[in-house]
Amino acid sequence: MGTRDRIVTATTELFRAKGYNGTTLADVGAAADATTGSLYHFFPGGKSALAGSVLRESGAAYQALFELIADESDGPADAVGNFFEGAAENLEQNDFIEICPIGGVAREMANADESIRLATADVFTEWAVALTARFTDVGMPADDAAELAATVIAALEGAFVLARSHKDAAPVRATGRQMRRLVEVHLADLDG
Amino acid sequence: MGTRDRIVTATTELFRAKGYNGTTLADVGAAADATTGSLYHFFPGGKSALAGSVLRESGAAYQALFELIADESDGPADAVGNFFEGAAENLEQNDFIEICPIGGVAREMANADESIRLATADVFTEWAVALTARFTDVGMPADDAAELAATVIAALEGAFVLARSHKDAAPVRATGRQMRRLVEVHLADLDG
Repeated sequence: MGTRDRIVTATTELFRAKGYNGTTLADVGAAADATTGSLYHFFPGGKSALAGSVLRESGAAYQALFELIADESDGPADAVGNFFEGAAENLEQNDFIEICPIGGVAREMANADESIRLATADVFTEWAVALTARFTDVGMPADDAAELAATVIAALEGAFVLARSHKDAAPVRATGRQMRRLVEVHLADLDG
Repeated sequence: MGTRDRIVTATTELFRAKGYNGTTLADVGAAADATTGSLYHFFPGGKSALAGSVLRESGAAYQALFELIADESDGPADAVGNFFEGAAENLEQNDFIEICPIGGVAREMANADESIRLATADVFTEWAVALTARFTDVGMPADDAAELAATVIAALEGAFVLARSHKDAAPVRATGRQMRRLVEVHLADLDG
C-alpha cells in the first residue's frame, strides 16, 4: 500500500475508534508509519482535508458494498434487510467500535468545520440517490422513493448509535426488520 | 439557579455545541461561572461523572417532553409524528447544533468510557420502555411494540445526523412521516 493509502486507512480506523477530536495527526503518523512532512505533502489542508478524503472514500466503499448486496438480493426490501444484517454482524465482529465514520464525524463536526460537514452531506446524498434508484427501479414514485431512502439511512445511522450504546446488535436487527417491512408496505402500495 | 444546576446546564450546552472530547472542565467552569474546586465538589469523578449526570438529566427531560406530547396527541402514531415535528423545529431554531447530547456522546464515547456508555444505554432503555408502553396501551403485543419503539428511537437519532449534516430539517420531517406510517401499519395489524 502506498503512503497516501496508508494514511487514509489509518485515519479511517482512528476516527472509528476515537472520533475526529480524539485523533491527532501524530496518531495518524504513528499508525500509518508516515512523517508529518508526508502527511502535509498528501493533505496540504491538514487534518480537516484528510478527514474530507477519509469520509468520501469510506462513503464510496459503503455504497459499493450496498450495491453488491442489493444486486444479490431479491428486490429492494430484501436488499435493505440484508444490509442491516451485514451491519449487525460487522458490529459484533468489531467489538462495537464506530461502524460508520461518516455519521460519527458528522455528529461531532457538523457545526465546527464546514468543509467536513459538506463532505458528510455529499456522502449521505450519494447514498440517498443510490437507494432511491433501487426503489424507483421497481416503480415507486420518485418523491416517495426519496423519502423512504432518507428514512432507511436515518434508521441505519441511529441503529448504530443504539447498538454501540448497548453493546448489542439487537437494535440493528430489529430496525432492519422494521425497515424491510416499511419498504414492503410501499411496494404493496404500487399494487393497490 | 444553584451552582450544581449551572454546571449541569452549561455542560449540556457545551456537549451539544462541541461534543465530549471538545469540551474541557475549564470550558465548563467558565460557562457556569464555577471554580474547579466546586466542579470537583459536586462531581468528584470529574468530567466522566459530570457527563453521566448530564446524560441522565437530559434523557429524563426529553422523556418528559415526549410524555407531554404523547398525552396531547391523538394516539401513538400521532404522538410519534408530532415528536419528530417538534424536533425538526428545534433544530431549525438552534442552527442545527446537536439536539441530543445522549446520542452524540454515545457515538463519541461508547468504546472509550464504560460509565458514560452505560449512562447512555440507561437513557435509551428508559425511552424505549416509555414508547413501548404507548404501543402496548393500545393493544400491540409486547415484542412487536418493543421492536417498533427501538426503530422509532433509531430513526430519530439517525435523522438528527442527516439534518445536521445537511443543515436542513427535511430528513427529520421525512423520517417522522414514515415512522407515523409504520406505527399506523402496526396498529392496522391489530384490526386484521
